[in-house]
Amino acid sequence: MILATDIDPMVLKSIGVIHSPYQKREDIPRQGRRSQEIFEIEIFPEFVPGLKDIEQCTHLFVIFWLHLADRSKLTAVPPHDGREHGVFATRSPSRPNPLALDIVELLEVRDNLLKVKGMDALDGSILLDLKPYSAGIDSFPDVRIGWQKENDIGSSIQ
Amino acid sequence: MILATDIDPMVLKSIGVIHSPYQKREDIPRQGRRSQEIFEIEIFPEFVPGLKDIEQCTHLFVIFWLHLADRSKLTAVPPHDGREHGVFATRSPSRPNPLALDIVELLEVRDNLLKVKGMDALDGSILLDLKPYSAGIDSFPDVRIGWQKENDIGSSIQ
Repeated sequence: MILATDIDPMVLKSIGVIHSPYQKREDIPRQGRRSQEIFEIEIFPEFVPGLKDIEQCTHLFVIFWLHLADRSKLTAVPPHDGREHGVFATRSPSRPNPLALDIVELLEVRDNLLKVKGMDALDGSILLDLKPYSAGIDSFPDVRIGWQKENDIGSSIQ
Repeated sequence: MILATDIDPMVLKSIGVIHSPYQKREDIPRQGRRSQEIFEIEIFPEFVPGLKDIEQCTHLFVIFWLHLADRSKLTAVPPHDGREHGVFATRSPSRPNPLALDIVELLEVRDNLLKVKGMDALDGSILLDLKPYSAGIDSFPDVRIGWQKENDIGSSIQ
């Protein structure tokens, strides 16, 4: 099968950089949602027009690149679980396309800088995309994962 | 500033393909969540070990490539809104990195095929990643977007 994307490779652009208090992987908590740390997302100047009205969003999806991830791994053992699962059934950073997905609270927008809470990115991570979160299409309050004992699937980093 | 990713480009891999009832952009509803159509996600054989235990997830994030998107656009006018917003404040497919994010209900897993509901992908879209949805970290039932009149931000495609 020849896919359109074999001819036109899917190359991502760096649209910004994430300034984080976490310098090493060991510093990162298991879940960004529980973190009280403040992160600063810096948007590179050429992409700033894309931020128009973003201050009207209280929560954002942040997609960033997990530059330290092992792209060859297809299974992972989540912390505090001890069993092996396929990476697509976990939030492990080890996956063929190391795309991290955090949902953050937007605290402040100043020019090309966004202050947010609820992340688990390493300092210097590359920003790929921001999207507004909307309860109407994104909130499923009752969803649980079968293999988890509790409602906790680990960090997107660790 | 020289970023790590300037030296090591961020190139995505095709991990599968989405079989959709929507052949043309005009066919796609504004929101996959309201769609009753069944989609089939085909995982390419080399990535099948990554699916282990995925049947224990009822809902998944599906990240796929919007191959028809205009990557140069930084503002968009959502349907039924009529005003221009920055692309990062909308779910428009036009954005520097055309990564679509759908949350789907997983109905069935058979070998390398996943039957899902709640998508808005075009037939033949390239799958990039799957992640389990967990209410504990992903559900924010009260979040609204300021610029919206109703709780409706449009499709990730249109």
